[in-house]
Amino acid sequence: FQITLLPGDGIGPEVIEKAVQILQIIEKFTDNRFHFSKELIGGCSIDANGTALTEEVLNACRQSDAVLLGAVGGPKWDNPDSNIRPEQGLLALRKGLKVYANLRPVKVHPALMAASPLKEEKLSGVDMLVVRELTGGLYFGEPKGRSIINGQEHAVDTLIYSEEEIRRIVKMSFELARNRRKKVTSVDKANVLESSRLWRKVAMEVSRDFPDVILEHMLVDTASMRLVTSPSSFDVIVTENMFGDILTDEASVLTGSMGMLPSASLGNGKPGLYEPIHGSAPDIAGKGIANPIGMILSAALMLRFSLQMEKEALMIEQAVNRTIADGCRTADMGGSLSTEMMTEEIIRRIH
Amino acid sequence: FQITLLPGDGIGPEVIEKAVQILQIIEKFTDNRFHFSKELIGGCSIDANGTALTEEVLNACRQSDAVLLGAVGGPKWDNPDSNIRPEQGLLALRKGLKVYANLRPVKVHPALMAASPLKEEKLSGVDMLVVRELTGGLYFGEPKGRSIINGQEHAVDTLIYSEEEIRRIVKMSFELARNRRKKVTSVDKANVLESSRLWRKVAMEVSRDFPDVILEHMLVDTASMRLVTSPSSFDVIVTENMFGDILTDEASVLTGSMGMLPSASLGNGKPGLYEPIHGSAPDIAGKGIANPIGMILSAALMLRFSLQMEKEALMIEQAVNRTIADGCRTADMGGSLSTEMMTEEIIRRIH
Ligand SMILES: CC(C)[C@H](C(=O)O)[C@@H](O)C(=O)O
Ligand SMILES: CC(C)[C@H](C(=O)O)[C@@H](O)C(=O)O
Repeated sequence: FQITLLPGDGIGPEVIEKAVQILQIIEKFTDNRFHFSKELIGGCSIDANGTALTEEVLNACRQSDAVLLGAVGGPKWDNPDSNIRPEQGLLALRKGLKVYANLRPVKVHPALMAASPLKEEKLSGVDMLVVRELTGGLYFGEPKGRSIINGQEHAVDTLIYSEEEIRRIVKMSFELARNRRKKVTSVDKANVLESSRLWRKVAMEVSRDFPDVILEHMLVDTASMRLVTSPSSFDVIVTENMFGDILTDEASVLTGSMGMLPSASLGNGKPGLYEPIHGSAPDIAGKGIANPIGMILSAALMLRFSLQMEKEALMIEQAVNRTIADGCRTADMGGSLSTEMMTEEIIRRIH
Repeated sequence: FQITLLPGDGIGPEVIEKAVQILQIIEKFTDNRFHFSKELIGGCSIDANGTALTEEVLNACRQSDAVLLGAVGGPKWDNPDSNIRPEQGLLALRKGLKVYANLRPVKVHPALMAASPLKEEKLSGVDMLVVRELTGGLYFGEPKGRSIINGQEHAVDTLIYSEEEIRRIVKMSFELARNRRKKVTSVDKANVLESSRLWRKVAMEVSRDFPDVILEHMLVDTASMRLVTSPSSFDVIVTENMFGDILTDEASVLTGSMGMLPSASLGNGKPGLYEPIHGSAPDIAGKGIANPIGMILSAALMLRFSLQMEKEALMIEQAVNRTIADGCRTADMGGSLSTEMMTEEIIRRIH
């Protein structure tokens, strides 16, 4: 398998190195072989090439079986007025790979409940999968720009969705729900937005093909409340790009283990894009103390979704679970293990 | 003072009646006189007039000093495909009164911490004011509609802001922050949205006139996390309409006392619009058990912002605080007081 590594900025390179180490251990248990090639994205790509993602790198990604991404961005490239910004690389990569579905599983590990901002009674049974539309909506809609109207500067962004864009992601959510608790919560703002009314209509159409899965509609403002008041009531959540950006981040802090959460971005063919949900954490970059678990679990999702190596994905996930249950903790989890030590603890538990 | 009452649907009429009762008590302490007139909005207006807000009612509101609103909506009018829906009345009212700033104070009452989904250590010091832009953005931008492109149905909403729309609300936020802890957090998505980049630029311009107030910019996804992980770090939050809808609801459940939270919607002149943030709660409507506090505190905000009766606003707020401290609780707060009994407890403490 050809795997493109995009370490990116900040702690990205530190954690991606550990995911590679884990995958090299996994190789010993299978006949599959991983070939890694490293490319630039984000701030480091801006420094080297003047753009956050070059056409060559995008092509290299397209030709591989899967892409592992660390994180992009940092104070050096932080000027929002600049025309060239690290996150453009991420957006161009998502669009270029046509990975329209961003999957973020959020599950609370019993040993980590104390670290959650929520009361423990709210946490038991929290096990949701947020499916965010990733290549449409306000992020990419045209027109998008500034203009002067009656002497006043105006800025516009466009929230546009086609039936087909909605159908494919809702369908994927139903398929994923089938292997889980068989409930899909479709989040929209159908009482205000035209795009949400189309979203809701298509969701209802798709649901007819999945009589075994329950479809529930929820307004985005209600969803932002329920995530806090009853997070365990959710199974699969599906929503459009901007709502998904907000709700996935909200969901990710509930468990108190943000540094541990992985994500997978999938399209219809290969390759998939896998990245931890944490950022580049410039404040701790270079110190060797970043939590590698989000990145390592992203590699596990890669094995599952892009390389059809379910058994090996589980090997990694179980090793991580045991490591946590045994009390191993990096700084963000309230412990003192380095990135390297945490990775070694996980490796010791892979079998 | 001429006050228009819009009881609306569900528990709206039950709680607005109690706010009126409180205001009639307040009258005894002042030379001011309140004249109330009752009008229809929402589902009841649809039933009576075929529209959620008539031109006559809007005009009556415009000619009054302040408008008190209960809540709109209910299962009877819940079909999102219908062209006539209760919340259209609310949106038309906001737009018609030009109340561009929705203020939602969120403060945790020490006696109610147990009811919060958050751990108690997260709650101490939570005292924020969310200022949401209310008459622009995705809610009202044009084009908004459906069309067929290449045989595919598409739906579009438009997120548009002018400098002036941003400036007036940011300015109001800074003015409000001056009388508080002197910090404004401006929430946007400047790494993706053009409208957010204009928002950020204008916010920086406005901040120059308020050297005593700190301006902080925060991405909306980060804000949705920080509201849960460190709610006490916020003072005034200002944001655009859709982000504000999501974040205010998220903020409102943190304290565990959603039924108690008021809101004020203000424009440049009179009248202001005052409503509790809870909905019409059709499940408990007609039972006499709704919590009247959100509505009563909205009446207090009306005294403060529209009628310049700060002393009397404080009388109500202090009476409510004492009532809670003394252990009075409606059903939603885990107690058994009826709407009527809770109101009487508050009245007994007004002096
Ligand atoms: C960096 C940014 C453009 C990105 C997004 O908004 O999609 C990030 O917040 C995410 O969620 O992956
Ligand atoms: C009912 C709905 C249109 C409204 C809104 O989205 O503004 C409500 O959610 C609110 O926050 O007041």
